[in-house]
Amino acid sequence: MIDLSGAWRLKQERHRAIYSFQDADAVTAAELTEKAVYGLPELNGDCIAQAQLVANPGCYATSVILALAPLLKSDLIERERGIISDSKSGVSGAGKAATSRTHFVSVADNFSAYAVFNHRHLGEMVEQLGLDDTELTFTPHLLPIPRGILSTVYVQLKRPMKPAEVESCLRDFYADRHWVRIFATPQLPQLQFSLHTNYCDLGFCLAEDGRRLVLVSCVDNLLKGAAGQAVQNMNLMYGWEEREGLQ
Amino acid sequence: MIDLSGAWRLKQERHRAIYSFQDADAVTAAELTEKAVYGLPELNGDCIAQAQLVANPGCYATSVILALAPLLKSDLIERERGIISDSKSGVSGAGKAATSRTHFVSVADNFSAYAVFNHRHLGEMVEQLGLDDTELTFTPHLLPIPRGILSTVYVQLKRPMKPAEVESCLRDFYADRHWVRIFATPQLPQLQFSLHTNYCDLGFCLAEDGRRLVLVSCVDNLLKGAAGQAVQNMNLMYGWEEREGLQ
Amino acid sequence: MIDLSGAWRLKQERHRAIYSFQDADAVTAAELTEKAVYGLPELNGDCIAQAQLVANPGCYATSVILALAPLLKSDLIERERGIISDSKSGVSGAGKAATSRTHFVSVADNFSAYAVFNHRHLGEMVEQLGLDDTELTFTPHLLPIPRGILSTVYVQLKRPMKPAEVESCLRDFYADRHWVRIFATPQLPQLQFSLHTNYCDLGFCLAEDGRRLVLVSCVDNLLKGAAGQAVQNMNLMYGWEEREGLQ
Amino acid sequence: MIDLSGAWRLKQERHRAIYSFQDADAVTAAELTEKAVYGLPELNGDCIAQAQLVANPGCYATSVILALAPLLKSDLIERERGIISDSKSGVSGAGKAATSRTHFVSVADNFSAYAVFNHRHLGEMVEQLGLDDTELTFTPHLLPIPRGILSTVYVQLKRPMKPAEVESCLRDFYADRHWVRIFATPQLPQLQFSLHTNYCDLGFCLAEDGRRLVLVSCVDNLLKGAAGQAVQNMNLMYGWEEREGLQ
Repeated sequence: MIDLSGAWRLKQERHRAIYSFQDADAVTAAELTEKAVYGLPELNGDCIAQAQLVANPGCYATSVILALAPLLKSDLIERERGIISDSKSGVSGAGKAATSRTHFVSVADNFSAYAVFNHRHLGEMVEQLGLDDTELTFTPHLLPIPRGILSTVYVQLKRPMKPAEVESCLRDFYADRHWVRIFATPQLPQLQFSLHTNYCDLGFCLAEDGRRLVLVSCVDNLLKGAAGQAVQNMNLMYGWEEREGLQ
Repeated sequence: MIDLSGAWRLKQERHRAIYSFQDADAVTAAELTEKAVYGLPELNGDCIAQAQLVANPGCYATSVILALAPLLKSDLIERERGIISDSKSGVSGAGKAATSRTHFVSVADNFSAYAVFNHRHLGEMVEQLGLDDTELTFTPHLLPIPRGILSTVYVQLKRPMKPAEVESCLRDFYADRHWVRIFATPQLPQLQFSLHTNYCDLGFCLAEDGRRLVLVSCVDNLLKGAAGQAVQNMNLMYGWEEREGLQ
Repeated sequence: MIDLSGAWRLKQERHRAIYSFQDADAVTAAELTEKAVYGLPELNGDCIAQAQLVANPGCYATSVILALAPLLKSDLIERERGIISDSKSGVSGAGKAATSRTHFVSVADNFSAYAVFNHRHLGEMVEQLGLDDTELTFTPHLLPIPRGILSTVYVQLKRPMKPAEVESCLRDFYADRHWVRIFATPQLPQLQFSLHTNYCDLGFCLAEDGRRLVLVSCVDNLLKGAAGQAVQNMNLMYGWEEREGLQ
Repeated sequence: MIDLSGAWRLKQERHRAIYSFQDADAVTAAELTEKAVYGLPELNGDCIAQAQLVANPGCYATSVILALAPLLKSDLIERERGIISDSKSGVSGAGKAATSRTHFVSVADNFSAYAVFNHRHLGEMVEQLGLDDTELTFTPHLLPIPRGILSTVYVQLKRPMKPAEVESCLRDFYADRHWVRIFATPQLPQLQFSLHTNYCDLGFCLAEDGRRLVLVSCVDNLLKGAAGQAVQNMNLMYGWEEREGLQ
């Protein structure tokens, strides 16, 4: 089973609380939470292949985790300085429900931040990245476009690095993965490049001081951020090629 | 009283039927319908000045009537050939209600016709222009913008005319009116020109045969098509200058 | 050869004139014009299969011709009453050149008519449909979206018809064709339905008088209106299935 | 004189270098640079009133400086932790020139970062705020809307504060100024609120730890970010009320 809801994504109780789930059967829920595998193939591919229950990641979480995982796993980020993800999403990310917030006139020619410090996807990010809750500041914004997420991620590196080193770190981490594309600096991905595809596009800019790093991560929230990723997970679970049905 | 609803705009029963009003008191309703003045200042300015009840026109109706009135009142249009208004409106014209139809994702990157042959504003147009119901074909469309209406109106002239004659006809009809602007051919109004103003902008193109005429009419549906026109009517009712509060 | 330009689409000199081509070699040009087949597979499929030079149709022309061909070929339209196509195109239809007209700020929140009575695609339409020049009025407009064309086409039928008859006429004409979809009234195609596909979507509304007919035609100008149609033509020329490479 | 260009905004040579000005007369240029007053009325109102040459601020700089000035002047920000402004601008901010970058099709349904670490307005910000160059990271992005700038600004406070304290700091700083509006948490300004006005709207969210602060700043880049601010400066220079001509 691949579940696109948030029901089984979170292992830690304090993160699960944000969804206010009413578990009819707490024992079963605890068992399933235990069994569920977080369905980000680039991080958990082997577990997904063995899983019976896959929790398909949130769209924002996909864009942020894929940007940060390589540098964090290599312990190159000064976590205590704080990591910031300033993320922007098209309106389909806000759901299908017709509300005053998704009315065309509310969104067009507009732009706004929302759910600062308390968006539901924050828990997924810190759990999957192994961060403390206060180490990641996540600010979602609503873009006046139908689809797509671009996250601009700010980190401080532990030591001065060169652009080529940063690029290598990203490339090595995703060496065998088809659905992440790395851009060589100074090229940056634009949101349009990944729309209507299952790609997560990653690029970066490094300051002259070699410490301040800005990462840019783009996904189509309906594909790599939702249904496309579910297909990718299905491919892994059935032992099929990761690209089946997605090209 | 200036009523922005459709309640008192229509004199003829068959047109009123489209609104399915449940008149609690049919006698009072009939009296008020009788008394109500259709609040298009460029046509009914004198009556509006004396009126106690003004029925503020529909937004589409404003754009179509102002385009056609000069030539129709001068009896220059071959009515039996049929008149067509292909009209396009921004989403605020579809109302404030949050529905699947006004959801940003339904409207953005989209365009569609609706209510062909049976839009509620059709009755106002034929009544005010003195047309038979089958002489005017009106097709509304939904534009992926927040506000504004552009109507492209097609008529056949009774005799071959020159562009200068057409322009004179329009200019003479609106000679003393501040809120209608006439464009000299080949200049055509664009929707942007009238947005955030109370102007109705009118332009036209005449075919080489001197008979086929295309009129273009632009209004901001929230101003000249609604609240702005109400203020203009208020000015007339109080004997104030027509421009008060609108510049 | 499949040529996406307008060079070989027009047979009649007065229509070719609008392109102001400077034919270096008039004799060769005349020969090629003679040989060229107008590449609308739903009309000229057999000729295209035998052709060496295919003139790929204009995007507007594709949308208008496919809407009108069934009824015109069945001689159901009162041509002398005049046919009107009020067409609306996304900005990619205006070309790739960066001009003040294609600048984002000129187009966004705007809508406008242009080239009334003299757009380049008008010649293709009348030649392919066998109309006199004055029988078709074509008004293009610029929509604030990246891609897609919707044409609203107005005709008067020679005799009162029923919706089912009109629908049959359309369905019969395109019975063996994959890339035209007919909508049953009162359903109308929206522009979004055909975007990112090679489909031309056709729908219609018939007035109660059974004579006034409004047709709605939607294509993606970059696919059925350009590159997709070229692939479809290539499939015919090579004897391949019409859908190859387009699904 | 009020100059809307960047010619006299920057005092420090290393910042001026980004404009690559060719000063025909270096002596005069140096004198004028010395005399020029940076035209942000909320910071330099008294100097502007006496000035002969006012350098009207950049649009991004206006939005960022107004967000940061109150807390920086009160020495409440931990500067060495780094300050980040993630800013998003409508397309009119990218200039009137028609380029492939401002073509409608490049911008619509798109979003992108650009000029990371080296945008021309960065110099204005650090000079006016008294920051070292590496203390401020500024990332501009291009929004698919015609106008407006929203900056999301991230700072770490020196000591845990309460939302009411932060709000007081902002309100006190702008106590006598008409054109800055402070939003009480948890209300945040949306871009739409300030469009077509001369207001800079400021709001904020404070994390539970009382240290991580997110500020949101909105301006219309064509008014408070350009022409409106020039009028405001003119009012000060002539001793007129700050609101003249702007309501």
